[in-house]
Amino acid sequence: MADSAEALGAVCASALKRLRAERPRVHVITNTVAQPITANGLLALGAIPSLTTDPEEVPDFVGRARALVINLGTLDRTRRAAIDAAVDVARAEQRPFVLDPVFADVAPARCAFAKALLDRDPTVVRPNLHEFKALFGTEADDLSGMADAAASALTVIAVTGAIDRVSDGERLVNLQHGVPVMDRVTAIGCLTSAVIGAYLGVTRNAFEAAVAGLVTVGMAGEIAARATDMPGSFAVTFLDALAMLEADDLATQLRLAGEGDAA
Amino acid sequence: MADSAEALGAVCASALKRLRAERPRVHVITNTVAQPITANGLLALGAIPSLTTDPEEVPDFVGRARALVINLGTLDRTRRAAIDAAVDVARAEQRPFVLDPVFADVAPARCAFAKALLDRDPTVVRPNLHEFKALFGTEADDLSGMADAAASALTVIAVTGAIDRVSDGERLVNLQHGVPVMDRVTAIGCLTSAVIGAYLGVTRNAFEAAVAGLVTVGMAGEIAARATDMPGSFAVTFLDALAMLEADDLATQLRLAGEGDAA
Amino acid sequence: MADSAEALGAVCASALKRLRAERPRVHVITNTVAQPITANGLLALGAIPSLTTDPEEVPDFVGRARALVINLGTLDRTRRAAIDAAVDVARAEQRPFVLDPVFADVAPARCAFAKALLDRDPTVVRPNLHEFKALFGTEADDLSGMADAAASALTVIAVTGAIDRVSDGERLVNLQHGVPVMDRVTAIGCLTSAVIGAYLGVTRNAFEAAVAGLVTVGMAGEIAARATDMPGSFAVTFLDALAMLEADDLATQLRLAGEGDAA
Repeated sequence: MADSAEALGAVCASALKRLRAERPRVHVITNTVAQPITANGLLALGAIPSLTTDPEEVPDFVGRARALVINLGTLDRTRRAAIDAAVDVARAEQRPFVLDPVFADVAPARCAFAKALLDRDPTVVRPNLHEFKALFGTEADDLSGMADAAASALTVIAVTGAIDRVSDGERLVNLQHGVPVMDRVTAIGCLTSAVIGAYLGVTRNAFEAAVAGLVTVGMAGEIAARATDMPGSFAVTFLDALAMLEADDLATQLRLAGEGDAA
Repeated sequence: MADSAEALGAVCASALKRLRAERPRVHVITNTVAQPITANGLLALGAIPSLTTDPEEVPDFVGRARALVINLGTLDRTRRAAIDAAVDVARAEQRPFVLDPVFADVAPARCAFAKALLDRDPTVVRPNLHEFKALFGTEADDLSGMADAAASALTVIAVTGAIDRVSDGERLVNLQHGVPVMDRVTAIGCLTSAVIGAYLGVTRNAFEAAVAGLVTVGMAGEIAARATDMPGSFAVTFLDALAMLEADDLATQLRLAGEGDAA
Repeated sequence: MADSAEALGAVCASALKRLRAERPRVHVITNTVAQPITANGLLALGAIPSLTTDPEEVPDFVGRARALVINLGTLDRTRRAAIDAAVDVARAEQRPFVLDPVFADVAPARCAFAKALLDRDPTVVRPNLHEFKALFGTEADDLSGMADAAASALTVIAVTGAIDRVSDGERLVNLQHGVPVMDRVTAIGCLTSAVIGAYLGVTRNAFEAAVAGLVTVGMAGEIAARATDMPGSFAVTFLDALAMLEADDLATQLRLAGEGDAA
């Protein structure tokens, strides 16, 4: 039984209201390129970010956050140790965590590290198609094995692209939000994972948190694109749109893509 | 005998004129999130930043700077070593330095590191209320012990919040500048500490440098907020305002808050 | 026989068309301050950046990129090891690489590291006047020895300043592009080196790639400055201008400076 746009829109709207009311703390271990837009995007939306990456300090920050986000960009020895320490705390204290396996398809060592993290029960995994294929060992470009992969890994998988697809193994939706200029601004994908983390801070349903994160970022992009399609201006207007986005927008404008559209 | 708004405004105006004329070099060891806005903010205002964090290189950069700024965000092993090396040079060559104890209230190890730095005679310490309480071991939310803390630590303390309070142990002022959207842009507090550093590069009076830094950033925020209260646009307009701010603005528009307002 | 503005303009226009058509991958090891604007500038222009700095991962990224850019800002132990590993791959797989010796004039250790890289055959070296003098051991402020330095080092040297000068030892041009506000935005120089790298990804002529990079950034700055001369707004508009810049602009508006103007 498929989720309707109306039902998902209502869920997302409710999650955004909670996010704005509760202002969840989110600890994000992300790459140095993405840090400014990640912090500013979370603040604009209404969450409270921390971003430290030192292995000794990370446990204190994860301990007081409601969710953890792990992004593998600019991975180095310090970040690897920090990620291990952060996941230890998240598991011990039952904090949800998002894994964004940036470029796991490029560097074999990074892919191996990402796979090891898969074994530690991430709440949501947010790859693009290339990273999904590298991580889950599948070759199909149509994502046909995605629900099985999610079921097998006991996680929610949210694969982003022209159309975003989310599955928890049982439910599966294709979302049609976003605009092309988003590919011309660095780290919007990384920010998306962090926004999913913010939603995990206010809902226990990981599938719905993933959908809410993708729709929030995609719809903010659409709002910003009404003003400009130039990348510098868009990046600024996009942050404004994250702040302006209203629960009612999510409730009424969520769009599903047809099954056949997914790629 | 309390400082009047007129007298402080005149002092700040004079300091801004010197800053623009002398373009002081400031070396800033700060977190990776804050680095872009810190460099851009100092450049917009008229100072010349350098931001390297390698322990081997930092002494050369501090040696040619007029002031040093130490921010404990994204603290890691390299930064800790760099900070120690930088403070050695600052003390040996009598350069003023600002300590911004970001999140010292969250991580005990970071708090201990910050306390050790307090023993090395920072010229100005710039915490928020939570960091102040962690660092100086006080519980009072009304900052009543702040002048004593400054007198005891032989430093200027500038606690930022809705109202900013500065004391050198004898003088104490409450400043009422800034706008709420500044809390939605990451690292404006970190930039504030760097701006205080820039003023330390052109004045020997640390109390006045701290006041000038806080008023400069707060007033630039007010100027920017006349154009927008959306966080993405505000961050851009705020940098413009740092460039446009005139000494005369500081001279005529500095606002003190009443004693009872401080928090 | 001197290059004419018309001939160089045509070369640059052709290179920009190829860049937009081929979207070259460029791996950039740069300082943490410059990373966001570097990634966003390359994306805006039409190239595809990667920026990881871990010594273990860098070889995989360089191996699939068409060019490598090495910037010595915020140099640390990890970056030094990553640069060595990256240059090994670039040389083994015949990828061109750009060296941007940021602040080599300030830190002797950094200068020594930069000199060692000069021995490893960078395709283009992109210093400012101070860095050029430190690196090539010359004292003349008029850059009179620049062609000889390029001939001796078997590289293209592109010294940036109010007037940019490029030489490969035989050819030498002085370019007159850019606007003063570019000095008030951090890391535009670092981005310039990355843009030269993007052009190296689509042309084998390093002299022409360097000219194209300098003219592209300078002309985008001029376009942006028509809208604003305030640093915050300029930085945004400048990214838009990189996206809007057309090959025809390069073909028709390239300006050479007179010999006597160089500094």
